[in-house]
Amino acid sequence: MIHIQDLETPIVLVDEDKLKANILRMQKKADKAGVYLRPHIKTHKSKYIADLQMKAGAIGVTASKSSEAAVFIEHGIRSVTLAYPLVERRKIRRLLELAKLHICQLNFICDSRYGFDTIKDVCHQSRFEAAIFLKIDVGLNRCGFDPDNKKVLKMARVIHNDKYLRLAGLLAHEGNSYGAENAKKARKFCKNAIQVLRALKYRIEQEYIPVPDLSIGSTPGALATKRFRAITEIRPGNYVFMDRTPIRLGLAKERDVALTVTSTIVSENKNYYICDAGSKILSSDTGGHGKNNIEGFGLVFPMNTYPDTSKNLLLEKLSEEHGFIVKNKNTKLNIGDKIRIIPNHACAVVNLVNTLYLVKGDVFLKTISVSARGKSI
Amino acid sequence: MIHIQDLETPIVLVDEDKLKANILRMQKKADKAGVYLRPHIKTHKSKYIADLQMKAGAIGVTASKSSEAAVFIEHGIRSVTLAYPLVERRKIRRLLELAKLHICQLNFICDSRYGFDTIKDVCHQSRFEAAIFLKIDVGLNRCGFDPDNKKVLKMARVIHNDKYLRLAGLLAHEGNSYGAENAKKARKFCKNAIQVLRALKYRIEQEYIPVPDLSIGSTPGALATKRFRAITEIRPGNYVFMDRTPIRLGLAKERDVALTVTSTIVSENKNYYICDAGSKILSSDTGGHGKNNIEGFGLVFPMNTYPDTSKNLLLEKLSEEHGFIVKNKNTKLNIGDKIRIIPNHACAVVNLVNTLYLVKGDVFLKTISVSARGKSI
Repeated sequence: MIHIQDLETPIVLVDEDKLKANILRMQKKADKAGVYLRPHIKTHKSKYIADLQMKAGAIGVTASKSSEAAVFIEHGIRSVTLAYPLVERRKIRRLLELAKLHICQLNFICDSRYGFDTIKDVCHQSRFEAAIFLKIDVGLNRCGFDPDNKKVLKMARVIHNDKYLRLAGLLAHEGNSYGAENAKKARKFCKNAIQVLRALKYRIEQEYIPVPDLSIGSTPGALATKRFRAITEIRPGNYVFMDRTPIRLGLAKERDVALTVTSTIVSENKNYYICDAGSKILSSDTGGHGKNNIEGFGLVFPMNTYPDTSKNLLLEKLSEEHGFIVKNKNTKLNIGDKIRIIPNHACAVVNLVNTLYLVKGDVFLKTISVSARGKSI
Repeated sequence: MIHIQDLETPIVLVDEDKLKANILRMQKKADKAGVYLRPHIKTHKSKYIADLQMKAGAIGVTASKSSEAAVFIEHGIRSVTLAYPLVERRKIRRLLELAKLHICQLNFICDSRYGFDTIKDVCHQSRFEAAIFLKIDVGLNRCGFDPDNKKVLKMARVIHNDKYLRLAGLLAHEGNSYGAENAKKARKFCKNAIQVLRALKYRIEQEYIPVPDLSIGSTPGALATKRFRAITEIRPGNYVFMDRTPIRLGLAKERDVALTVTSTIVSENKNYYICDAGSKILSSDTGGHGKNNIEGFGLVFPMNTYPDTSKNLLLEKLSEEHGFIVKNKNTKLNIGDKIRIIPNHACAVVNLVNTLYLVKGDVFLKTISVSARGKSI
């Protein structure tokens, strides 16, 4: 039996019980609300965790990168939504070919005429069929059609009438929920997304164009909301691990967080303990979309009192391989002591390592490969 | 001949001519100043670039992570300084064994009694010999002995008198230079580091303890300084690529930057062009030690006008896989257009990818593996 105290640092731990509990909780929520769960794999990039999600009842997975989607198509996931506006022919063709080979149902999204034409051209040239969601902006002001833009209806019709294309529905990311002040505000952002998609579906279907699916997705939105009304699927990602964002919003407790980074105190000065976890394992993210009102870069727990929050210290700033922990009279640390850190943004942490260390409490179980990491295209 | 316009995005380009020019410039500077150059490999983590540095005249390399140092020891680099206060026996023993096997001269640093005792115990138990630099804090207030602390002299004596240990000298990182307001201030920080080490060497040598080497290191410090006086070696890392920090300080021009990230415009809204490079390839770093006064997360150049700064746009904020580029009447971009981005912090970018794409101007040459990436311990 290997105790985590005996593993070298810094590494990324994933608590199996907490991971499974988080997966189950979200699946139950989706089941109860009558929506499908299509988790976003950008958070874990790991076949092992995708398998747990599928086993629990997920309908398929969501991916942003074409190269990451490919890993999960090849792994045998039978339904994948590429929730990113691809505008490059090679990426689209490669994914369609792979999906055909692996009998995977693949959905694209589109938010511009250019994007649509690119998908269409590939499909027409190669006689591929493809399902397309129209991406709708519900307040993040990033990608997506303005829901009031008349182009939406026009695009829906063009897709509907195309020989090779099928309108899968409307898709939105209520990403503004990450920056919400509290759970209530996050719920409001999610409710707004639901209303926008419902109204738009109604308008499109009045034109006799079926809009089968309404898909939204964000962990704060999914955690904060109970009734999803006309929505047919949700696409949260971060919920498998949680981090300081759902904690800040009051949507999770420290004890729910399945992913922590271990570190060792290597030095100290008048104001700080210096640990061996810096921005190259924790990232400099303050949260999703970089606009969380989160102080510092992680919550620090002495290894033997984790997850007791009364002994917390704050990781105030980071160098590449160093963390600066604010000294505090209540919690004394010594050089050589090991700590566990709840990061600001778990998705960014996983993206920085090749390996996750699966643990059960304080006991190491096995390593998990971050198979889809480092595939930038 | 493959044009970079034809490569999928986002990827990390390294311009071979600029890379070699940056390597040569720093080496010439070191040669002229009569100091050895021991570049920090945390920036590139690549054997290919380390070989270029060694060929140009570097005396060896510097590493922060034991696992990264191991890659370069195994690669055949004959002198490595592990410029990080290791406090874990296994890491020290493994490196000493590897160094012995590969006939590599290995230097450690130490800034605490605990750290010293750990190195000493390993050496005594295994009859390894080791060279130790005393790490001195010269204003970053991170690791290192306070130069006025009497422990420094005591530690120097203990190391000097030990059977297996040798005092390599004094080592400092003038990392405060990253946050300097301008080149003059960066030079001042570097000068201060030089003065502190000189004075301390004098005090220690008065006690008949030889202090062979004085080592400092930071790219802003090395670029801003001409005369290094008693210093025997410098350890800059970032200079091989450069990024927005030396540009901000007036120590490099945009055209000197050897590392850029390519990206494609995938969407747009009222205020922003949205590109496919986000925090998962650019990082959320604002600069070294996260305290640069840099606006946004990258300088954007249309691919065909790079590196013409009159057509610049600002990458204002990032999601994980999206960048928000502020629209500007002078430079119109369309969905599908490709761009090149000068990142805030090149070292953080390399840490996010497995592969660098070596180019000569606009022509792709070959890929370079980031061999030492993802080795967190």
